[in-house]
Amino acid sequence: MRESELPVKFEPQGKTVFVLHGTTVVEAAARAGISMNMTCGGQGTCGKCRVRIVSGACEPTGAERALLTQADVDDGVRLACQTCICAPMTVEVPETSVLTSTFQILGGASGALMDVSDVAVRKRFVELPAPSREDETPDIDRLERAVGPFYLELELLRQMPQRLRQWQFQGTAVLADHRLIDFEEADTTSDVYAAAFDIGTTTLVGTLIDLTTGRECATVSRINPQTSFGDDVIARINLVRQDPGGLDRLHRAIIGEVNSMMAELCGEAKAEIHHVYEATFAGNTTMQHLLEGVDPSALGEVPFVPATGRALMLHARDLGIGIHPRGRVYIYPVIGGFVGGDTVAGIIATRLGDSPGATVLVDIGTNGEIVVAHGGRMLATSTAAGPAFEGARITCGMRATNGAIEKVLFDDDVRINVIGDVAPVGLCGSALVDVVAEMLRHGLVMSEGLMMLPDQLPDSVPGPIRDRVIIAPEGTAFVLATSAESGTGAPVYVTQKDIRELQLATAAIRAGFSILLRRVGLTVADVDQVLIAGGFGNFIRRSNAQRIGLLPADLERRRISFVGNTALAGARLAAASQKIRHRAEKIAHEIQHVDLSIDPEFQAQYVEAMFFPQKG
Amino acid sequence: MRESELPVKFEPQGKTVFVLHGTTVVEAAARAGISMNMTCGGQGTCGKCRVRIVSGACEPTGAERALLTQADVDDGVRLACQTCICAPMTVEVPETSVLTSTFQILGGASGALMDVSDVAVRKRFVELPAPSREDETPDIDRLERAVGPFYLELELLRQMPQRLRQWQFQGTAVLADHRLIDFEEADTTSDVYAAAFDIGTTTLVGTLIDLTTGRECATVSRINPQTSFGDDVIARINLVRQDPGGLDRLHRAIIGEVNSMMAELCGEAKAEIHHVYEATFAGNTTMQHLLEGVDPSALGEVPFVPATGRALMLHARDLGIGIHPRGRVYIYPVIGGFVGGDTVAGIIATRLGDSPGATVLVDIGTNGEIVVAHGGRMLATSTAAGPAFEGARITCGMRATNGAIEKVLFDDDVRINVIGDVAPVGLCGSALVDVVAEMLRHGLVMSEGLMMLPDQLPDSVPGPIRDRVIIAPEGTAFVLATSAESGTGAPVYVTQKDIRELQLATAAIRAGFSILLRRVGLTVADVDQVLIAGGFGNFIRRSNAQRIGLLPADLERRRISFVGNTALAGARLAAASQKIRHRAEKIAHEIQHVDLSIDPEFQAQYVEAMFFPQKG
Repeated sequence: MRESELPVKFEPQGKTVFVLHGTTVVEAAARAGISMNMTCGGQGTCGKCRVRIVSGACEPTGAERALLTQADVDDGVRLACQTCICAPMTVEVPETSVLTSTFQILGGASGALMDVSDVAVRKRFVELPAPSREDETPDIDRLERAVGPFYLELELLRQMPQRLRQWQFQGTAVLADHRLIDFEEADTTSDVYAAAFDIGTTTLVGTLIDLTTGRECATVSRINPQTSFGDDVIARINLVRQDPGGLDRLHRAIIGEVNSMMAELCGEAKAEIHHVYEATFAGNTTMQHLLEGVDPSALGEVPFVPATGRALMLHARDLGIGIHPRGRVYIYPVIGGFVGGDTVAGIIATRLGDSPGATVLVDIGTNGEIVVAHGGRMLATSTAAGPAFEGARITCGMRATNGAIEKVLFDDDVRINVIGDVAPVGLCGSALVDVVAEMLRHGLVMSEGLMMLPDQLPDSVPGPIRDRVIIAPEGTAFVLATSAESGTGAPVYVTQKDIRELQLATAAIRAGFSILLRRVGLTVADVDQVLIAGGFGNFIRRSNAQRIGLLPADLERRRISFVGNTALAGARLAAASQKIRHRAEKIAHEIQHVDLSIDPEFQAQYVEAMFFPQKG
Repeated sequence: MRESELPVKFEPQGKTVFVLHGTTVVEAAARAGISMNMTCGGQGTCGKCRVRIVSGACEPTGAERALLTQADVDDGVRLACQTCICAPMTVEVPETSVLTSTFQILGGASGALMDVSDVAVRKRFVELPAPSREDETPDIDRLERAVGPFYLELELLRQMPQRLRQWQFQGTAVLADHRLIDFEEADTTSDVYAAAFDIGTTTLVGTLIDLTTGRECATVSRINPQTSFGDDVIARINLVRQDPGGLDRLHRAIIGEVNSMMAELCGEAKAEIHHVYEATFAGNTTMQHLLEGVDPSALGEVPFVPATGRALMLHARDLGIGIHPRGRVYIYPVIGGFVGGDTVAGIIATRLGDSPGATVLVDIGTNGEIVVAHGGRMLATSTAAGPAFEGARITCGMRATNGAIEKVLFDDDVRINVIGDVAPVGLCGSALVDVVAEMLRHGLVMSEGLMMLPDQLPDSVPGPIRDRVIIAPEGTAFVLATSAESGTGAPVYVTQKDIRELQLATAAIRAGFSILLRRVGLTVADVDQVLIAGGFGNFIRRSNAQRIGLLPADLERRRISFVGNTALAGARLAAASQKIRHRAEKIAHEIQHVDLSIDPEFQAQYVEAMFFPQKG
């Protein structure tokens, strides 16, 4: 039942999205591609997400009254994290409330803007005096006199004498880390970009950053084409081990897709591909190996050793990445065989360890990585969650893209929200969490994960919901959209098998969470903050995550924040900051890696976590 | 007349050479490929060239008596720079008297041996612990733990996991300047080489250095194949300017020849070419451009600006130099358009500027480079001497190689010495200097350079010498070897045109010398030392150089030293020392470059120097 959807228009962005009644403005803004400044994690305490509700405002909450003046309130000012959408709304978003650039560090207190001196790539337009008898300085030394010393490749050196003379000794020097990347005709200082990629097992996300402003110009997301060779990293490692051409095929698949994304990013941003001088990547250890074309076989057997732990700085050309031919590729350092660069990027993006209390970062993807920071110490581990949270291996599963049901609520019937305001064609991970949580609440699923048959349902279940339990070709199923409502003509439903997949995924993360806490001698009550990262993180409901047992039920809800795709955020930060790269190196080096597979308690914890909590 | 040649045998080298009566032991040793330790420049004052004359010793000179004990003298000990060969001789050369390695700096006081910590390339055999659950350190980090941090290329990174496992985590790391060049099976620490090249306009010389000992393993000399495109650098620059394929042809010619020399060096030294990890080059500015494949067109027009002044560190693969595929190429920094890396190398090799007095370095090649060092200041210039000193453009001219007449003396007839103790086939530059000096002394040539006809000769000229003046197809000529004596069946002679070539070459150098001295406010009397470098430098006679006016006649002879091929010596030093590379950079940056072509006095000085001195 798609109904009661309310339009919310954001100004000055001019974007409109449709959301369910009761959705927060922050959530609606996220759907519109606007990240609100929210250093308190949506607790209504930092006051950084101030917006003005031009029309459709509700009464302010207590938190809003505490932070806003009466004049503000009268003028329609609200906190985006607190105010809910109860009617069609127009929202005015002040620039100060938007996480404008990737360079405002997530979770950080300062939201500092980009520091130009810290960007690896810099451009300098120069007008050099032409050589004369009084000034016989050689060509390269002449340029260095203007821009400082650099190293340059033979290929470029060979072109320099002619370029300088042809352009009357004027042009733009492109420098990165004391290397001359290029010397371009005329003043091109306004055209300088870097790309940042999160390379997930299932999903690839890329973004193009204008390095003059730090702003994101375009974002593109794709299914990792390697999924056709195997859903998870183990399947891909096995392919490499068994097939002599396997590594090459997997490597080419990811490089090809990244290049296609690069072209799309540039097209969207109207940027020239040769004005992209760096590309940064964060992914799990296996994905980074496959990107690099490095054999990951050792990751498939005890003791799961990566080829390299340190960050890599490679020539884009060597790797076949289609940016500037002398551009460079930065790949995040890794922590261990199954705790990769994406986790380091997440630690960077969330500034984990900067706050004094115990903080846990949970990155939910095909692998679930968990990091605990406490008292200057960090521990990290990884669990094999499987791709359920990314919508894979789920009967009607899909990524969180147009047509995906991304939110499900039960009242007298089922209410759904679909990304892109189109007819639903499947469901993504957040909707799976929602629907299973609601089914648990309404007694449609038992704590061991068994789905009730239509005739076993409790009487309390409203008729319209009851009618959604059907016997599909795959067995018992729960219908979210009928064939009439669906965009494909086939119904969208959740099966018993889908629930089993969710149980496995949830249990793995929950068990890892418990063991890591125990290792640092903490209990759930000691945890100050839990940060949930991952592609679906922005749209999941905390209560539902706790209802299905993904997070402990005894964790105070206000301690849970969703921090979005921190792997991508970390890759973006590394694209614009050399200090960030140094920090990443240090973190990867100092963090303690916990191997759950040799933890004597893991198996017991895992089996226990397979049961959904008795009540939420 | 090849006669009175005396055999001199050197032990423990076991080499025998044939020399003229009166030749010094130092000179004979040089012919046998043994460089004597001689920090005083052959003045008989440092005592470093002590040898024991086993048989054929003459009476000791005053200098020898001053430095040696009577017991020494009785035992046959002499100074190689003082003692002359008057009879067949056997000489025992103590190791301490030999310039064993390239790492004893020419002209230096200490003769310090190679400092291993200063060599760019180093090898470390490692036996790493295999990864285990207790030690999951990634492969590269594991190696870095043993050898320190390094950068490595993607290509090598891709091979490391397999190599480490195949070789049970044992092998030899090859490092240069914090780069991992290779990781080799088993212990290869004894196989580590570098090559050093002097790339002259006319002659190429290469040498292979064993970096474990600093010793030279092999030396190869070739004609620069670019001579077929033009004798001098101007001709080659014009070819590049006029022919779109010219640069490529010249570049390929030199690279091809260097690679052929590399193969020969390795063959001779029984070294594997992939164990050569660095190659260093010193040449004039144009030659270095052509080696690099960089367009030298700007060197062919005012203000003669090089592409780069700084030293280059390139990938051997990018340049196509056939050493280890990840090996590196170092090319000396240059001072100006016509004062190149060979001059910087010469300054390095002679430690010019280290001594307190005024020192002049004259490097005699196709270009004559002159450097004056005085009171912490250095000035450098270049003059177009032409290739006469290298035996080119001379009717019977040839390089100083087997079959070349390299020394000429007049007594009652002409006495010649031929390199390799074979029949003569031509004459090299030193012989040209000798013969013209002797002809001047005997009145066969006038001071304006005119050769006397047979009927114009003074009566004092002995009959056998008189008979050597003939009318050859080229005009008046002086015969050094008749067709019967010659190895080719054709006579070897010197023509009027050859004498003109020598006049031009000599005048250019002499004029440059005068102007540079004047620039620093010195006269010949103020000069403490003149160092003569160049391929023929070891074999020229000071008196003859002064007789033809190459050096001022009023320069005290003891102030003149021959320092050999300092470009090659500098290239060798750079191959084994990073400090040397830094020093070269500093020198090239700080030296003052004098452009003679805009000096108002140069033309007058040049014309004046065209006349041979009236008497010597």
